[in-house]
Amino acid sequence: MSEFPADSVGLVTPQTVHFQEPFELACGRSLSGFDLVYETYGELNRDASNALLICHALSGHHHAAGYHSVDDRKPGWWDSCIGPGKPFDTNKFFVVSCNNIGGCHGSTGPASINPETGEVWGRDFPPLRARDWVNSQLLLAQHLGIDCWAAVIGGSLGGMQAMRWSLEYPDKLKHAIVIASAMKLTAQNIAFNETARQAISSDPGFANGDYLKTGSRPKDGLALARMIGHITYLSDESMGKKFGRELRSGTFMRGSDEEIEFQVESYLRHQGEVFSDNFDANTYLLMGRALDYFDLAREYNDDPIAAFQHALCDFLVISFTTDWRFAPERSREIVEALLGARKNVSYAEIEAKEGHDAFLMPIPRYIDVLNSYMVRVFQATQTGAGS
Amino acid sequence: MSEFPADSVGLVTPQTVHFQEPFELACGRSLSGFDLVYETYGELNRDASNALLICHALSGHHHAAGYHSVDDRKPGWWDSCIGPGKPFDTNKFFVVSCNNIGGCHGSTGPASINPETGEVWGRDFPPLRARDWVNSQLLLAQHLGIDCWAAVIGGSLGGMQAMRWSLEYPDKLKHAIVIASAMKLTAQNIAFNETARQAISSDPGFANGDYLKTGSRPKDGLALARMIGHITYLSDESMGKKFGRELRSGTFMRGSDEEIEFQVESYLRHQGEVFSDNFDANTYLLMGRALDYFDLAREYNDDPIAAFQHALCDFLVISFTTDWRFAPERSREIVEALLGARKNVSYAEIEAKEGHDAFLMPIPRYIDVLNSYMVRVFQATQTGAGS
Repeated sequence: MSEFPADSVGLVTPQTVHFQEPFELACGRSLSGFDLVYETYGELNRDASNALLICHALSGHHHAAGYHSVDDRKPGWWDSCIGPGKPFDTNKFFVVSCNNIGGCHGSTGPASINPETGEVWGRDFPPLRARDWVNSQLLLAQHLGIDCWAAVIGGSLGGMQAMRWSLEYPDKLKHAIVIASAMKLTAQNIAFNETARQAISSDPGFANGDYLKTGSRPKDGLALARMIGHITYLSDESMGKKFGRELRSGTFMRGSDEEIEFQVESYLRHQGEVFSDNFDANTYLLMGRALDYFDLAREYNDDPIAAFQHALCDFLVISFTTDWRFAPERSREIVEALLGARKNVSYAEIEAKEGHDAFLMPIPRYIDVLNSYMVRVFQATQTGAGS
Repeated sequence: MSEFPADSVGLVTPQTVHFQEPFELACGRSLSGFDLVYETYGELNRDASNALLICHALSGHHHAAGYHSVDDRKPGWWDSCIGPGKPFDTNKFFVVSCNNIGGCHGSTGPASINPETGEVWGRDFPPLRARDWVNSQLLLAQHLGIDCWAAVIGGSLGGMQAMRWSLEYPDKLKHAIVIASAMKLTAQNIAFNETARQAISSDPGFANGDYLKTGSRPKDGLALARMIGHITYLSDESMGKKFGRELRSGTFMRGSDEEIEFQVESYLRHQGEVFSDNFDANTYLLMGRALDYFDLAREYNDDPIAAFQHALCDFLVISFTTDWRFAPERSREIVEALLGARKNVSYAEIEAKEGHDAFLMPIPRYIDVLNSYMVRVFQATQTGAGS
């Protein structure tokens, strides 16, 4: 593996597990069984006390670290944090990352065959909530022989799963690491998600969600949805720094309104197109709805302190100064609720220019905070805390 | 006019003026002539020194105040500021408001007939810059017998026109009132405009801009563009206050992903639909491009102080605390450049929850600031300053 950086987990191979039992969903419907695709990095220790669960966000998947082939130009999506010597240190921890159900990277989702009809699920795939993912991740833990996670970790929608774990299965995790997340979306968040939905569903190629049956594709709509999302992941400052008002051609076009002229436009279009070539529109809609629906305290009388009183684990909460999609204020609300519930919580607000995307970046102080906290998480694994 | 509020200008009738001379545009092309639709409120005084020019923003038009019929349910778009006893007091001032060229409310624009071809201009209408509007407004001033405006006033894109007036025709205005504006857009602003363009141009009904010839309409795309814009006009706070996470049905839908569930979604869809029934897509694209292109100091070596050294008028600059589309920082940049150029400038940053849209609202401190400043503007009209 001399091709890969020394702190990379190197070549990794996804695995698939099939669960045969009917799986009840929060919406009241159930799956007659399902597949989960996952990757693991590092070794599970003898008492299975060193396992970390990585929960992915809106457009994420199981491939969080390392490379699938020697020709891969890019590693997994959170390679900055997972690997030997990195915060989620594969010399110490057994790191598990799965593609959530409803996804489009191999786990059962809208692009899978509905066994009851023999046809692609498409728009008929049941809507999911964060708790459905938590329940499916619990089955994966059992499959891997893990009774209790050393930590459940996630950014954005992933952080919501970590919080939900702490309430649903309080004795099945020692730590929850909640990064750039929120207890619920704001109206503005929901509004942006709604524009993304409109972009997809008004694309004639969407065919009312049946595009896999009709052979069409909502390529433009999905690309536009991603463009809108992408703007909200970046800060005004980082976009300004990256693109400013740079023109692609160097001078102002005169007389033509059709050309792409600003660099930022060409960047966004490219991002949108690449994404729409590799992502399923129904999955995007489903994930966005799960985000909108998430409301940590809804079943606890809208009282987040009452909600967190059910948690038993310790918490690390992290936010980034220029994140306006999940602003630091949202993280401070989490911290206040945890303190109100008398939980152990560490909080760091990281100075960063990158907006919401900062949680994926190797920002030194962010990495330092994770490293320090993971020392504590590791200590817990050494004291027989795994069962 | 007892049907109308006492501080309304009451019934108003739009007028149209046709200019026959060829009109050179910044892009290098020209119009062989053009129509401007405009409204006036109040009376022009003897020395024509009391005229105010109102410049409209992206989706605005000439109908800024009063009512077109006794059945009108809503007055013009800036009725909060124009009328007897209001800041732009029609007992004292002669207020002029036109639909800019390129618009879709009667002035020559993409939906007009191109006299050279006998067909609708559509996408072939030349791209416009703020200076083109200023030049056309100068012709309107001459038509109305106004040699010098007591003030040129505008919010957002309208503020850009006021600033451009001060540089292009320094001796033709006494005051410029620049509200919720900027000397140029940020990369994030441009990026949002680009998503709006993509929404419109990827709608099959857009027919590459020729929808008026083909009889199709980019209804969904224009609605979506407006939805995206609308989110950026409101603050996170004002959306939260207006909608929170209120559900339309009162409870969470189970099992269905298709229904509109959050109030904010239904509001945005409605806004988008109403807008797309009443606005021309090519005009929207053209106005958005003019916004993107605007860069006050580009022709002044990118030095805004050097640019404003050409101005002779006094300035009032106003921003709103929660406006994130044209943030107070952008207004402070204008103020700093004006101070650097040793111009008289007053600045007010208004505490407001309404985001960018605040400039249209009757916010007491905002109205107070305008009222105070307009006393000065009126005094200048009394000293024979009009010529």
